[in-house]
Amino acid sequence: MLKNYLKEKREFIDENIKNCLDELKYPQVIAEGMKYAVLNGGKRLRPILLLMTLELLGEEKEKGIPAAVAIEMIHSYSLVHDDLPALDNDDYRRGKLTTHKKYGEAQGILIGDALLTHAFNVLTSKNQIITPEKIVEIVRLTSQCAGINGMIGGQMIDIESEGKNIDLPTLQYIHTHKTGKMISLPVEIACIIAGIDGDRKEKLIEYSELIGLAFQIKDDILDIEGDFEKIGKPVGSDTELGKSTYPSIFGMEKTKEMLAEKIAAAKKIIHSEFQSEKGRLFVELADYIQDREK
Amino acid sequence: MLKNYLKEKREFIDENIKNCLDELKYPQVIAEGMKYAVLNGGKRLRPILLLMTLELLGEEKEKGIPAAVAIEMIHSYSLVHDDLPALDNDDYRRGKLTTHKKYGEAQGILIGDALLTHAFNVLTSKNQIITPEKIVEIVRLTSQCAGINGMIGGQMIDIESEGKNIDLPTLQYIHTHKTGKMISLPVEIACIIAGIDGDRKEKLIEYSELIGLAFQIKDDILDIEGDFEKIGKPVGSDTELGKSTYPSIFGMEKTKEMLAEKIAAAKKIIHSEFQSEKGRLFVELADYIQDREK
Repeated sequence: MLKNYLKEKREFIDENIKNCLDELKYPQVIAEGMKYAVLNGGKRLRPILLLMTLELLGEEKEKGIPAAVAIEMIHSYSLVHDDLPALDNDDYRRGKLTTHKKYGEAQGILIGDALLTHAFNVLTSKNQIITPEKIVEIVRLTSQCAGINGMIGGQMIDIESEGKNIDLPTLQYIHTHKTGKMISLPVEIACIIAGIDGDRKEKLIEYSELIGLAFQIKDDILDIEGDFEKIGKPVGSDTELGKSTYPSIFGMEKTKEMLAEKIAAAKKIIHSEFQSEKGRLFVELADYIQDREK
Repeated sequence: MLKNYLKEKREFIDENIKNCLDELKYPQVIAEGMKYAVLNGGKRLRPILLLMTLELLGEEKEKGIPAAVAIEMIHSYSLVHDDLPALDNDDYRRGKLTTHKKYGEAQGILIGDALLTHAFNVLTSKNQIITPEKIVEIVRLTSQCAGINGMIGGQMIDIESEGKNIDLPTLQYIHTHKTGKMISLPVEIACIIAGIDGDRKEKLIEYSELIGLAFQIKDDILDIEGDFEKIGKPVGSDTELGKSTYPSIFGMEKTKEMLAEKIAAAKKIIHSEFQSEKGRLFVELADYIQDREK
């Protein structure tokens, strides 16, 4: 059930991203590079979470299209900049050359900048079916989760921590900020769109935080045990960069236990609060995050 | 009259930028780097234009504070990224080390990203005295002027044109996009805030386009005739990078004539359409752009 759902939603999201980027023409290298960076066979976890949450809350998924597209653009820009020589210096991502390897370094920087900037254009695009009040709230929250107090903050501490032994609070800060904020963001946006607040909203955000953390722990595991063919980038790059990870701090066995705990806690929230057919998808998504091979 | 006005407004803007950035604390290098990049004794031409236009249109300047701060953050981020080794590779700006020279290259990239992202947080900050409809329109326009169809587009073509002989349309594209869009943006935002449309708006935008172009032509002249002590960066950097400029295409004499023409046309608009004391400031600003030494 989940597999078909993910495929269908991924296609829906890719089509919307493509329509949006096809409008951009010039300078050609920027327009092409933006598409290259975003339309790369990504899992679309973040936008799918947004649409799934909207449907769980009984809202039309169409209300979430601009935010779904914008979040994937921001996620993609962050990968483009992370891969740059001055940061992680990666040549491959998902089995293809990274954006700066394909188009050049100056181009990579500007393509990333253009994706981030255009995300805010998409969020405020015309003819939307949600109120301006909600759009303003969504822009505010998105810039919060993507900025110094969110993703960029996590990325900075991650880089500063390379080659150092860091403590668990620092590792947790990195994970909750570098990946966590952009995974809870789509769930929170869906709550804004649906106009729900209070306990149900808190539970959904808690779920998203747990699967966000689980997602990162699984990433750490795949960096050691994964298969290049499947993950599309060299195995062992964390170790090479001297990055502290869950396995490097806790060992592999304990790390897998922690992963299982997060997944169990996430599923428990859904079982106790959202016992519908739509809720079932959230349980399956948690399992998928634990079991994924890429 | 203009000199005092500019000083007073610059102080007002700097105070608001400072208040805004002082709220950011962690990661320390990002918070500090953002301040370093923005609070650097800049002229604040763009935010001043916003406040001047609001006052010309009889609106309180307080309505424009978030946009004034945000525009200066976006302008500053663009300078931080332009100065990076992969782009213009500049070590000095306004007489101080560039941000990446001061904090490191990875940090420079992330500080720029953080400024751009935070600008959208400021634009949508709480407790504003303009309507959500107008805020949405301002975010849309800002992301348009700063993105692939605006500043980033101009920057990309500028880089692609290095070491080549380019034609006038290409040079004009670079100037109208790289600097022009972010100079007409504050004027257009003031019109949105004041709710004016039609002929008066068009005339004001035309004025801003003329002084934006004049500003860039003057920059080209200063890169040849300027004084390091005053402009705060080495003279001749355009020539060194093989950039086409107005003087390289037209020669210095013709370039100065073209500058004078733009200034005269800008002043004519104000004389015929905005004959008030507030309008007088726009005339003086045009003269200031022509005569500035930095």
